[in-house]
Amino acid sequence: MPAEPYAYSLRIRLHDTDAAGVMFYGHLFRHAHDAYESFMEQLGFPLHDLIGTATAGPKVRLPITRAQARYERPLRLGERVRVELWVAEVRRRTFALNYRFQDAQGRTCATAQTLHCLVGEDDPGLPEGLRNALTAWIGDAV
Amino acid sequence: MPAEPYAYSLRIRLHDTDAAGVMFYGHLFRHAHDAYESFMEQLGFPLHDLIGTATAGPKVRLPITRAQARYERPLRLGERVRVELWVAEVRRRTFALNYRFQDAQGRTCATAQTLHCLVGEDDPGLPEGLRNALTAWIGDAV
Amino acid sequence: MPAEPYAYSLRIRLHDTDAAGVMFYGHLFRHAHDAYESFMEQLGFPLHDLIGTATAGPKVRLPITRAQARYERPLRLGERVRVELWVAEVRRRTFALNYRFQDAQGRTCATAQTLHCLVGEDDPGLPEGLRNALTAWIGDAV
Amino acid sequence: MPAEPYAYSLRIRLHDTDAAGVMFYGHLFRHAHDAYESFMEQLGFPLHDLIGTATAGPKVRLPITRAQARYERPLRLGERVRVELWVAEVRRRTFALNYRFQDAQGRTCATAQTLHCLVGEDDPGLPEGLRNALTAWIGDAV
Repeated sequence: MPAEPYAYSLRIRLHDTDAAGVMFYGHLFRHAHDAYESFMEQLGFPLHDLIGTATAGPKVRLPITRAQARYERPLRLGERVRVELWVAEVRRRTFALNYRFQDAQGRTCATAQTLHCLVGEDDPGLPEGLRNALTAWIGDAV
Repeated sequence: MPAEPYAYSLRIRLHDTDAAGVMFYGHLFRHAHDAYESFMEQLGFPLHDLIGTATAGPKVRLPITRAQARYERPLRLGERVRVELWVAEVRRRTFALNYRFQDAQGRTCATAQTLHCLVGEDDPGLPEGLRNALTAWIGDAV
Repeated sequence: MPAEPYAYSLRIRLHDTDAAGVMFYGHLFRHAHDAYESFMEQLGFPLHDLIGTATAGPKVRLPITRAQARYERPLRLGERVRVELWVAEVRRRTFALNYRFQDAQGRTCATAQTLHCLVGEDDPGLPEGLRNALTAWIGDAV
Repeated sequence: MPAEPYAYSLRIRLHDTDAAGVMFYGHLFRHAHDAYESFMEQLGFPLHDLIGTATAGPKVRLPITRAQARYERPLRLGERVRVELWVAEVRRRTFALNYRFQDAQGRTCATAQTLHCLVGEDDPGLPEGLRNALTAWIGDAV
C-alpha cells in the first residue's frame, strides 16, 4: 500500500458550473477520468497507448462498467480541487478506483468510484505489468 | 404507480463519443439530467422555475447528492436511445430517480440512479405539490 | 435554393448554462454540430457512415477547419431554440454551413458558420452525391 | 507589449476526443476559455470575482460576443498543448484576445479569437484597472 494516494489537481472553470452557481454534478466524472488518465500515465500505461488507433495493432480496452459519486459540498467557480485517487481492488479482469475530491481547506467535497473491466474476444486477464502496477496503489476504502 | 415510465429520447452525437469509438461514460449523467429536466417540466416544476435567478424570490434547490450508473453495452455515434425514467423513492427531503437507457432494439445499455436532496436554511421538506407529483411516478426498482 | 433552411430544435439544459446564468459560449458549437449531424442524416450521409469504424473500409473525413460565432442575446435555462441551417458555399473539397439560433419569439440569439474540408491521402474532391445534396441547400448568407 | 504571450498548458483528455479519433472542434473554445480564466486571474481580475454571486454586490459582466477558430492540425489523446494568449485590442467597452494552440513540437495546431464586451444598464466602460492590465498584454496579431 502506498504511503500516499495519487494526487491530481484542477480548478473549477466557468464551463464546470451551471445556472445554480455550482459545479454540474456530471462533470465530477469528467474530472475523475482526467485524474485516472494522469494516474495511468504515471503507471506507464497511458490511455493513448491502450486505446491505440485505427491503424495500430492490438489494444487493451478497459471501459468503465460502473461509476458512482457522492456529493457533500458544492464546488464553485475558481475553486482549487485536489483529487486523491487510489486502487480499491484488482481482480483478474477488473479493477476499481476510488477518488476523493478536496477543496483548498482540505474538506471532502465529493467521493467517487469507477469500475474498469477488460473486454475483448480473447480473455487473458489484465496484462501482468498493469496488474502489478495497480496493486502497488491499493489503499483503504473511502 | 404509472402504467409506463416517463420516456425521453436522444441521439448519440459526435461529441458524446470518444477516441475509443463509444460514448464517454460521464456523458450518461448529462443525458440522465436532460431526461430529468424534461420530466420535471412535465410534472409542472421546470428547473428554470426552481433554480430561479439572482433577482428572483425564494428558490427550491434540489442538488444531486448521489449518482451511480452501470454500463452494459457501449453506445455508438448515431444510435437512437430511449431513456425510461421513474421515481424510486420519495422521502421528506429527498427523492431518488431511476433511469434505463435502451437502444433501438430495446436492449438495456445502461442504468442509472440519482438522489436529489432539498437544501436550504429553512427545512420545510419538499413542496407538497412536488411530492405528490413525484409519488405518482413511483415505479419498480431497476 | 431551398424555400426554407433546414431546421433543428433544442432546449437549453442546465449543463449548457454557467454560473453567469446563461449558456456558456462554447456550447453553441456543440449545438451547431448536433444540427449538422441531423442535417447530414437527412441528406443521406449520416456521420456514423462517413466516419466509419476501425474495422470498416474507406471513410470520408470532413473535419471542421474554421468555425465562428456571433452572440446577440443570451440563452437561458429552459429556452426553446430553433436552429436554422443552410449551405453557404460548396467547393471542390470544402463546404461552408451557416446557422442561425432563434429563441421562441423568433429573435436571433446567435449566428455561426463552420467550414468543412475533405482530408485524405487521395484527393478526389467531395463525393458527387454529397456535393449535389449540399448544393440543393445553398441559401443566402446570414 | 509583453516580451512573451501569456502561456497556459493542457493535455488532450479522452473526453476531448471523438469517434473520429481527434479533438472535437467545439472543445477548443472550452480550452481557450480555461486559458482566459487563468489569464484574468494573473491580471488580478479572476472571473469568480467578476461574475459574483446572487448575494454579492455589483458585478462586471464581460460576455463573449464573437468567437472564431482555425484548425490546422488535429489534436489527439494525450497530446500536451501549449496555449499562447495575448490581447489583440482594447476599446472602451470591449477587448479581443488571440490564442495560439501549439503541440509539443511547437507546431501551431489551431488559433482562435474571442471578443469580450462589457454589458450592463450603466455603461461606464471597462474598469480602468482592467483596461490597464489588458493593455499591457497587447501583442501582434496571429
